[in-house]
Amino acid sequence: MHFVPFSYAIDLAGTFAFGLSGAMVAVRRQLDLFGILVLAAATGVAGGMIRDILLGDLPPEALRNTWSLAVTCLAGVCAFFFGPLIERLNRPVMLLDAVGLGVFAVAGCQKALAIGLNAPGAVLLGMITAVGGGVLRDVMAAEIPRVLREDVYALAALAGAALYVAGLRMGAQEPIVAACAAPLSFAIRVASVRYGWKLPRAPWS
Amino acid sequence: MHFVPFSYAIDLAGTFAFGLSGAMVAVRRQLDLFGILVLAAATGVAGGMIRDILLGDLPPEALRNTWSLAVTCLAGVCAFFFGPLIERLNRPVMLLDAVGLGVFAVAGCQKALAIGLNAPGAVLLGMITAVGGGVLRDVMAAEIPRVLREDVYALAALAGAALYVAGLRMGAQEPIVAACAAPLSFAIRVASVRYGWKLPRAPWS
Amino acid sequence: MHFVPFSYAIDLAGTFAFGLSGAMVAVRRQLDLFGILVLAAATGVAGGMIRDILLGDLPPEALRNTWSLAVTCLAGVCAFFFGPLIERLNRPVMLLDAVGLGVFAVAGCQKALAIGLNAPGAVLLGMITAVGGGVLRDVMAAEIPRVLREDVYALAALAGAALYVAGLRMGAQEPIVAACAAPLSFAIRVASVRYGWKLPRAPWS
Repeated sequence: MHFVPFSYAIDLAGTFAFGLSGAMVAVRRQLDLFGILVLAAATGVAGGMIRDILLGDLPPEALRNTWSLAVTCLAGVCAFFFGPLIERLNRPVMLLDAVGLGVFAVAGCQKALAIGLNAPGAVLLGMITAVGGGVLRDVMAAEIPRVLREDVYALAALAGAALYVAGLRMGAQEPIVAACAAPLSFAIRVASVRYGWKLPRAPWS
Repeated sequence: MHFVPFSYAIDLAGTFAFGLSGAMVAVRRQLDLFGILVLAAATGVAGGMIRDILLGDLPPEALRNTWSLAVTCLAGVCAFFFGPLIERLNRPVMLLDAVGLGVFAVAGCQKALAIGLNAPGAVLLGMITAVGGGVLRDVMAAEIPRVLREDVYALAALAGAALYVAGLRMGAQEPIVAACAAPLSFAIRVASVRYGWKLPRAPWS
Repeated sequence: MHFVPFSYAIDLAGTFAFGLSGAMVAVRRQLDLFGILVLAAATGVAGGMIRDILLGDLPPEALRNTWSLAVTCLAGVCAFFFGPLIERLNRPVMLLDAVGLGVFAVAGCQKALAIGLNAPGAVLLGMITAVGGGVLRDVMAAEIPRVLREDVYALAALAGAALYVAGLRMGAQEPIVAACAAPLSFAIRVASVRYGWKLPRAPWS
């Protein structure tokens, strides 16, 4: 608990962003304080838990280490008190979600490679990690998951994860690659919403 | 199979209660006999499976040991034949759900501590174990999970789990602590429904 | 990667069938190309992932081996271009789903027995494996899972799994048993839709 390595700090930043996005959804649904904390924790922690389960690193970090839980509770309390301030941002849930998306895509890849998964498996795991928290948030709030509703969502996570793995393969330094890959996912996601990017639909539909 | 230790007996009691709650939901939705058995099994077994997955104790107890399955099938058959009798209780699904909630909160903590998780992790795992079965039941029956709809739900599980961990830390005997903690969760949950307890909503909403 | 054993080839066939069923649901919902690939991958891969998680064989085969992912992408691309051809089949999603159901019921049993689970646990795991992919597909597409809507669904998976375990216990050769058990599940499922088989409902409902 005394020493927080770099990869774990990344995890915490993504956890906070996803936690805040979950808390804001809970606030909009007029859930009570504990409901906000539960949805913040579920959203913030789910992606990492799914990653740790799939990699067989059990019990998952979120249970062994009190920091993740503290961070999501902090996110919940922030949303509870400063909701209107956060709401004044343009599309705050989308922005926070995009931060979490980029961070977790990289964090998932990182750990997958460390455990010895091959490149396609690591990219896939990065995407699952990035998308997992948001899917749980939307399913629990009885909405159709964003990953299916929106055109460029999982694709943004995939791009970041692919850049991360490709960068490492080409011999670049890990922190530099991470510092490019996570913002790439974020930028693609936000730009796709801002400019209304569409992907092709089935030619005959 | 010849010897059922105390902690496993607790598991079975919670499994039966949750199984019966799932079966009653299935009966109300007019599912057929096999649908009742499936929802009873899913509800009864899910919490423990999630716990075992998160603790890395795989394959989970529910697959290694035939008793859990037998107990949920028994719950399903009871609901199939004696549904009207059970229905005559006041809010039977809520009561059964509350029993399962208390039992699994303690069972989750117990196993988490045994595997060496720290106190906050054990309390969190207890809450996840308690809430998991009901979430799966509600999601499969296409309802918004009770844990988000109701004010005092996860909080009741949390209280039982916290009392259990705190009691052990203060040196009390394990069976006595368990015998206080599970009823505490049950009592808080039932009282909150009976007296309509509310938690604070966001101050500005 | 050079050598694909028999049990893995079975997995791939089921993965393709489930992947195609997921892709056809995505096409009907007018999702874009990437949404089709995501739902194809989720449906095709989920059953096997759940199986590997429950058996503690982590990271799951679908992440270690690039073939599963390639096969589901192929299924997505087929649906994208040849959707109308597939649609001309009578109830294509149901048929593909039934193929996946039979294949995964057997594949789940197989691996469970190999890892040393007892007979009831292996049958249960087979059923969970068979049903898992379709449940995730339906939940992500915001439909009530087929396993609850339809009368003979999990029961068909159960029949195949039970025949597989019973056949092996009676000393039959593994490939022969598998070649009987998977088609049995498929046949029961398709016949139940074709002839409208119903299971008993609660006597008092």
